[in-house]
Amino acid sequence: MIVDFLKPPYYAVIFSTILTNNLENYAETAERMEALAKLQKGYLGIETARNEIGITISYWESLEAITAWKNNIEHTKVRNLGREKWYQKYQLRICKVEREYGFEKTS
Amino acid sequence: MIVDFLKPPYYAVIFSTILTNNLENYAETAERMEALAKLQKGYLGIETARNEIGITISYWESLEAITAWKNNIEHTKVRNLGREKWYQKYQLRICKVEREYGFEKTS
Repeated sequence: MIVDFLKPPYYAVIFSTILTNNLENYAETAERMEALAKLQKGYLGIETARNEIGITISYWESLEAITAWKNNIEHTKVRNLGREKWYQKYQLRICKVEREYGFEKTS
Repeated sequence: MIVDFLKPPYYAVIFSTILTNNLENYAETAERMEALAKLQKGYLGIETARNEIGITISYWESLEAITAWKNNIEHTKVRNLGREKWYQKYQLRICKVEREYGFEKTS
């Protein structure tokens, strides 16, 4: 799902990934991490899409909220597992959302 | 493809979309817009993925470069066509990339 209007300024973590062929436990772990992220203080939403590459964007109230999520113990273990097994390559970008616009077809 | 390390600060435009069922000329127009974006001053890269939703992120040197691309005449026409035909819903976010980290498996 698309994350609807949020009120800037807030933060986005753009996580762009290429997976390996070893995807044992990947799908259920990704689902678990999304559920866990939603429980964190300052979480605002998540968007995800994948075909040749995967893009997951999580939205947060503040840099402090992103740091707290980064330091979550279960998340840290899973991140290490991700580098060992599932990710061929990734790039993670921390961004401040300054402006936004939305459109929805009414007809 | 994933966009490799860029040097913050720079800008990202996150364009999250849900398509209609009327996708006449959509694929070739999207391809044309990507080719045209690459010719713009200040363009740094693009990442795109789609399954239930689409996420396209373009990276730019400055807000001025984003504004110039927004005002490009061909791009403006296509954007209007997109709202008429292809997009059920979208959200567009303009962000300043403040930090980034990368990983690539060596083995």
